[in-house]
Amino acid sequence: MAKDRSRTPMKLGAFLYATGHHLAAWRHQDSAERSGFEIDDYVRFARLAEDAKFDLLFLEDGAGIREPDLGIAAQTSRGAHFEPLSLLAALATQTRHIGLVGTVSTSYSQPYQVARTFASLDHISGGRSGWNLVTSTTDMEARNFSRDRQDAHGDRYARAEEFVDVVRGLWDSYEADALVLDRASGRYFDPAKLHALDHKGRFYSVRGPLNAARSPQGRPVVVQAGSSQAGIDLAARTAEVVFTAAQTLADGQDFYRRLKGRMAHFGRSPDELAIMPGVFPVVGRTRGEAEDKFAELQALTPDAVALALLGQHLGTGGLDAFPLDEPLPADLPATEANKGRHALLMKLSREENLSLIDLARRISGARGHWQVIGTAGEIADVLQERFEGGAADGFNIMPATLPGGLEDFVGLVLPELRRRGLARNEYSGRTLRDNLGLLPSGATP
Amino acid sequence: MAKDRSRTPMKLGAFLYATGHHLAAWRHQDSAERSGFEIDDYVRFARLAEDAKFDLLFLEDGAGIREPDLGIAAQTSRGAHFEPLSLLAALATQTRHIGLVGTVSTSYSQPYQVARTFASLDHISGGRSGWNLVTSTTDMEARNFSRDRQDAHGDRYARAEEFVDVVRGLWDSYEADALVLDRASGRYFDPAKLHALDHKGRFYSVRGPLNAARSPQGRPVVVQAGSSQAGIDLAARTAEVVFTAAQTLADGQDFYRRLKGRMAHFGRSPDELAIMPGVFPVVGRTRGEAEDKFAELQALTPDAVALALLGQHLGTGGLDAFPLDEPLPADLPATEANKGRHALLMKLSREENLSLIDLARRISGARGHWQVIGTAGEIADVLQERFEGGAADGFNIMPATLPGGLEDFVGLVLPELRRRGLARNEYSGRTLRDNLGLLPSGATP
Repeated sequence: MAKDRSRTPMKLGAFLYATGHHLAAWRHQDSAERSGFEIDDYVRFARLAEDAKFDLLFLEDGAGIREPDLGIAAQTSRGAHFEPLSLLAALATQTRHIGLVGTVSTSYSQPYQVARTFASLDHISGGRSGWNLVTSTTDMEARNFSRDRQDAHGDRYARAEEFVDVVRGLWDSYEADALVLDRASGRYFDPAKLHALDHKGRFYSVRGPLNAARSPQGRPVVVQAGSSQAGIDLAARTAEVVFTAAQTLADGQDFYRRLKGRMAHFGRSPDELAIMPGVFPVVGRTRGEAEDKFAELQALTPDAVALALLGQHLGTGGLDAFPLDEPLPADLPATEANKGRHALLMKLSREENLSLIDLARRISGARGHWQVIGTAGEIADVLQERFEGGAADGFNIMPATLPGGLEDFVGLVLPELRRRGLARNEYSGRTLRDNLGLLPSGATP
Repeated sequence: MAKDRSRTPMKLGAFLYATGHHLAAWRHQDSAERSGFEIDDYVRFARLAEDAKFDLLFLEDGAGIREPDLGIAAQTSRGAHFEPLSLLAALATQTRHIGLVGTVSTSYSQPYQVARTFASLDHISGGRSGWNLVTSTTDMEARNFSRDRQDAHGDRYARAEEFVDVVRGLWDSYEADALVLDRASGRYFDPAKLHALDHKGRFYSVRGPLNAARSPQGRPVVVQAGSSQAGIDLAARTAEVVFTAAQTLADGQDFYRRLKGRMAHFGRSPDELAIMPGVFPVVGRTRGEAEDKFAELQALTPDAVALALLGQHLGTGGLDAFPLDEPLPADLPATEANKGRHALLMKLSREENLSLIDLARRISGARGHWQVIGTAGEIADVLQERFEGGAADGFNIMPATLPGGLEDFVGLVLPELRRRGLARNEYSGRTLRDNLGLLPSGATP
């Protein structure tokens, strides 16, 4: 599925995450020495990404602290962060072009509220909002919402399938020209162009219509990240951007083929969806400088913290039962948590023959995402390889530190991508949907 | 309970509502000829209020279109509006001093989400967020949230009592000095200063802790508007600002006495709560000019639309069964909707001996709130009378049109209030809580 990329720029996301993606970012001098609650920092990061013509800002989210051991959580910057939609709305009036993608879980929210909040953000930003749909992965979050544990994986995806349909239906409540604002006749909107949804399904009954006028994008962009079979099916049917983790070119190509290949089943063409794997770059003027920078971050990461993160991402919680210097058992069963990430981590452990502690250290940078450490030229080479090799339509950049890692990418790697004609020099459109080259909304089934 | 007001300024809210509070505002030349989805308009309104040193912006909300007849809804600007929290977050970075109060219903949201969103807004705004707690009043909203009808009035308030306790408990998760950010030792926060809530109640089980650092106000300001006995009890126990409707000085004094008098029962002093009745001013350079302006708005209001609004506020829906030119039956029963507003409207009908259609017209300006129509001096007189007469600690100003009605109040009435020493010239504090003269948070029980 490789194709001529000569006229299509790489799509680029700036994934903002606390003081940087590395577990120890907050301890490093390249990150802002502040909490994650300084709006001025976020405004600065957003403008840095916008000046560099990134397509979008990306904010992940959890509906609670996801580390059960507060003594461990206390050694990270992950115990507290902005609620993403309010943060994006605040950034909307401080930026003009960049897309604003925020995460909301289908397990702990209501479709009516999600539809109207993203519609509002789309109005506020002039058509730049995107919803990253997740189903959540921890029982910790369930316990903040009057539940003992999260639903089983299959049920979470069944709920998500229905949830996204309700949200998209609500976004279509008002037709684009429904508001007429005719003072003389007293007709504010044309009632023939406002539609109730009257949805009655397994999980939700939602009458509608949405109490928000049709937004500039019509439907905000739907983003997903699931990579289990259920996740691929949901994305093939409903997603327009997919954020994914792939360690190798071959893994990336395989996922790309599987997801894009599945779209025809739902009557969609592969161009209706952009795959943007996460990449964690550590850039140096020389390879040695990059490696030193990464080593500094690794040295600042306590083993116990790295192990806890691994346990979280495997969905197993504590890993005390396993010896540190031996690989995890190859048949360690997946739980109801994040099946895609579990499979990726077990494959990584096996392919790189990593002991438990080495696996934990291996992912303390990027939580299982692809790490690239080297010069701007070396990083541009491997990004180009995956982009042109049918493994990616672009990348979600996960800076190790913020702002340092983002400044490095913008200052060193991006000029190299531009020299190669792989990254845009200017925004091409007005909305996020335009810039991503996606179909107008409403055209998706 | 009248007291010396010589050193306390009136608290002032700017209640932004579509293109103005009058049902026909959108048809009038004093309102912006735009939809309710122009962020630039809201930025302009917010700055106008901030330049005038209002304490707060106030945004009401409904979780759906509240008029069942879309043909009627289509003649108003009430069928679509911004989701208030995203709008307030967008305004937070465009203002510096003014409080940002948004409405969220306890019937259709989750306390964990409400707690974190207002905490985020408090961080984004540097301590200016406030939550107007409502329990919602229509079955229309329930049907957007997988319910056939809303809960009974008593159950809604029972839920709200528990909901607000959970939210306040979650706001106390991180102590003020919990984040230490000590890079050398690797301690981001002090786990001894982070507290799980472990709430298990009738309606909610919420473990916590909140994944948001303690915000500048600690606890965002809690605002309420209920005036039934259940509403008064909830407010006496937990509210810090109460927005209310009172037609006469005597009604205002009676409500003020009842609510403030009830606070001791909950161990609170009357100064821990500010009562800010809504007021709908129509200002003219002469009384005649003001009356003409109001008459213009009234003439632009179709009877059917006014009647539908009355039906909504009575909670009865359609009023077809009743003759237009006779008063409503004095024993028209209240429903499970808004008991406080029902009582107020029936009293208004009785005291002013209004026919059904006259009652409908009477409230098409301010939905049952107090209307004052006159010169700046006349309006200042009656505001002063209620402020000094123990009926109000300030007012929530409901401009008939936007921006026209707000500009009139700021340009004509406010200078008169300042001349009388009743309104502030400068913000006195940094946070909304400071400006309102409320206790530091955490001090409330």
